[in-house]
Amino acid sequence: MKEYRPAGAVIASELGAIAGAENVIFDDFDKMEPYSHDEVSDRNYSRMPEIVVRPDSAGQVSAILKLANRENIPVTPRGAGSGLSGGAVPARGGIVLSTERMNRVLEIDRENLIAVLEPGVITNDFNTLVRREGLFFAGYPMSLEVCFIGGNAAENAGGGRAVKYGVTGRYITGLEVVLPTGEICTFGGKRVKDVTGYNMVQLMVGSEGTLGIFTKIYVKLLPLPRAGIDMMVLFADVRSAINAVPLIMTKTGIVPTGIEFMDKVSLDTTCEFLGEKKRHREAGAVLIIELDGNDPDLIRNECLDIGDLCLDNGALDAFVAEGPSDREKIWKVRRHAAEAFKAISPEQSVEDIVVPVSKIPALIPILEELSAKHNVIIPCYGHAGDGNMHATVVKKPGESMESWRKTLPLVLREMYTQVGELGGTISGEHGIGHKRKDYLPIVLGEAEIGAMKKIKVALDPNNILNPGKIFDLD
Amino acid sequence: MKEYRPAGAVIASELGAIAGAENVIFDDFDKMEPYSHDEVSDRNYSRMPEIVVRPDSAGQVSAILKLANRENIPVTPRGAGSGLSGGAVPARGGIVLSTERMNRVLEIDRENLIAVLEPGVITNDFNTLVRREGLFFAGYPMSLEVCFIGGNAAENAGGGRAVKYGVTGRYITGLEVVLPTGEICTFGGKRVKDVTGYNMVQLMVGSEGTLGIFTKIYVKLLPLPRAGIDMMVLFADVRSAINAVPLIMTKTGIVPTGIEFMDKVSLDTTCEFLGEKKRHREAGAVLIIELDGNDPDLIRNECLDIGDLCLDNGALDAFVAEGPSDREKIWKVRRHAAEAFKAISPEQSVEDIVVPVSKIPALIPILEELSAKHNVIIPCYGHAGDGNMHATVVKKPGESMESWRKTLPLVLREMYTQVGELGGTISGEHGIGHKRKDYLPIVLGEAEIGAMKKIKVALDPNNILNPGKIFDLD
Repeated sequence: MKEYRPAGAVIASELGAIAGAENVIFDDFDKMEPYSHDEVSDRNYSRMPEIVVRPDSAGQVSAILKLANRENIPVTPRGAGSGLSGGAVPARGGIVLSTERMNRVLEIDRENLIAVLEPGVITNDFNTLVRREGLFFAGYPMSLEVCFIGGNAAENAGGGRAVKYGVTGRYITGLEVVLPTGEICTFGGKRVKDVTGYNMVQLMVGSEGTLGIFTKIYVKLLPLPRAGIDMMVLFADVRSAINAVPLIMTKTGIVPTGIEFMDKVSLDTTCEFLGEKKRHREAGAVLIIELDGNDPDLIRNECLDIGDLCLDNGALDAFVAEGPSDREKIWKVRRHAAEAFKAISPEQSVEDIVVPVSKIPALIPILEELSAKHNVIIPCYGHAGDGNMHATVVKKPGESMESWRKTLPLVLREMYTQVGELGGTISGEHGIGHKRKDYLPIVLGEAEIGAMKKIKVALDPNNILNPGKIFDLD
Repeated sequence: MKEYRPAGAVIASELGAIAGAENVIFDDFDKMEPYSHDEVSDRNYSRMPEIVVRPDSAGQVSAILKLANRENIPVTPRGAGSGLSGGAVPARGGIVLSTERMNRVLEIDRENLIAVLEPGVITNDFNTLVRREGLFFAGYPMSLEVCFIGGNAAENAGGGRAVKYGVTGRYITGLEVVLPTGEICTFGGKRVKDVTGYNMVQLMVGSEGTLGIFTKIYVKLLPLPRAGIDMMVLFADVRSAINAVPLIMTKTGIVPTGIEFMDKVSLDTTCEFLGEKKRHREAGAVLIIELDGNDPDLIRNECLDIGDLCLDNGALDAFVAEGPSDREKIWKVRRHAAEAFKAISPEQSVEDIVVPVSKIPALIPILEELSAKHNVIIPCYGHAGDGNMHATVVKKPGESMESWRKTLPLVLREMYTQVGELGGTISGEHGIGHKRKDYLPIVLGEAEIGAMKKIKVALDPNNILNPGKIFDLD
């Protein structure tokens, strides 16, 4: 494996000359510790950086990368650290480059419905800002209260509205990006269409900070729909809830904004975490179905159609929420599921498997068998409408840590293999990072991974930028 | 510049062993001539292939590419040949690989709303097929009656519905692709979300046949909207029509399916070509506005809102077409504009400039000044709603060919420079090919082009696949 040079006091001082000494953290454990992990709970995926630097401009980012290439020191870019695959963790040590100071909304171009943001803008803050003007950014990761737009783009974040709106990448029309070797490039811009050479924008989006560091992001905005309805549909058990998911779209012809799923354990755990009363204790699973549009009557009718279909297919009951506070109640539970599980059990692995929507019913017995066979709990919640489920493998209280450490990789390998056989893959929105890189060959062949590696080597010949993520080069 | 080996009888015989002798065309001018050009009218961009081969499978494509690498012979993939930038032309000679025999619809997966197609399927045939099932493919190039889905994907075709639906790439969820060195890869699939490594699907889409040859294409389908309305709005002159375009979206909050534009010359020329009577001789320009949705009343109201806005902003009159035959009449004129101009004047260059939508009004005086300064005609039509205009530079009848040959590059260079200054680019949907490659540095810097070249070299080290397109490596 490639050897890097340790980054010490001399490098820290050079970084200070680039970004200002007050924006360099060195030799200070307490201040550096928050930069050593993301939201992956297993601390085996954490690593302390040698230096943290917080540049303020593309020029500074470029200078840092040139220095790193010259000195052979790895650089790991970092947004809010809310990722779930280790993307922002300095897996090979070296420098963490935090984008937290690049947090300006540079432009909201109302005529072209495009905003230009720096990477450190918090997604929710941005949406609050544009909502006032009757606009919205359709990227909707569950961590939107904390995550940065730069991280959303780097991970190609998905979330709850992808059924109708697609994932983050669809709304990124341009990027200013510093390449691993330090060149500052602009790809795309405010154009709706652009076939000028390769689609570098979408190659960069989702590249998990391994192909470039984004310093400006062009985000497409949409007119804010004038009406929205959420519906919580209760089912007696997981299978009947999941079986209803593909039916909703194929039988009604309606494409909801989102169809979220939570099983009983997820629901109970999250309600308890939030101190909220669960409305219907007899429910074994719920679907949360979101509809939006400009005509309240139309979506109310769509809501009724979907409700009827669910009731014809085993639903126990359905609640409709139209006002902002009722809607927020429904969503709050779903949005805090990951956090609730983390609080309860640090010995767990939030998974992000995705299958073709029609295969969701086939996924449930697989998870049930795995959990019985390996004596683990696998609660499940997620974005059922797009086939993306956060099955979470949790250690049982009685199990020893030693046994858990042995069991988890077996469970994951079997889960991923079966997901692959269903035409699915190991990550829908959280990314590969270093958490899943060993499992990549389960779903991608040598030729596919080989092509990706060739691109990485071509753009980052010294393997300076976020090494040890997605795959190892050496 | 790199030297290639000529492809002679021995190679033809080897290709026959791979794909069947009956699928190899060699030493037959008349049969090879159709493979020497696309729809670019200037025959300076044509070149005869040395051999044409029509493989039937990914395995055969792979064998052909391995042979070509071994023998140092360029391979140019070709769909229907309806492109407008020379993408399918063997600019450096060698082998043309036609996908015409790979024309099967392999699967229509109704549950997941995804179809799997071979590249040689005609776009319109496919849409006719899925329309029967209440579905549609939202990619909508103007050449849909002839173009292949493989070419749509390779060029990332746009068309008239991109305002609402985006371009072809949004609907490509997976590709089986043969890399330039012959490896058969599958990227993506039937998943709505997928962040398993780099977004190779979108890197391949729009790469103009320079990074891989597509052998299977996974296409996302949408439920066919139950209602649609087209509206033709007449304006006294170009400027008032164009000024209305950004207003439609910003003032009404409605995102139409498409907003097409034709100036007087385009309208007259196309109506004459089709033998159709132009309904309103006093119109100096028209907008064709398309709306679709599931609620006829809602889109009728939207149509009225837009009509009122146009009439308040200088429109002379508006016609609404709701039935299929009336709608087809409106669209037929727009769809045949390129063909009409080609029939009238072969000395012309169909351009594909694109600017941010708000800059469309600023584009018109630029074109007027260019046409006066250089004594050329520049009729203009196109997808005004997404800023993509097919300004077409046409030789005046009295002008000599010598002067035309000198003038055209000057006009293009000035046009592209000013489009770049407006935040636009030189191609929105037709591609760079070899027609525009000399002009690429006007809108992309050295670092941006350099990054693209590195990717090309990484995946095609011998520069075998479609050399001489987008940029030259040597």
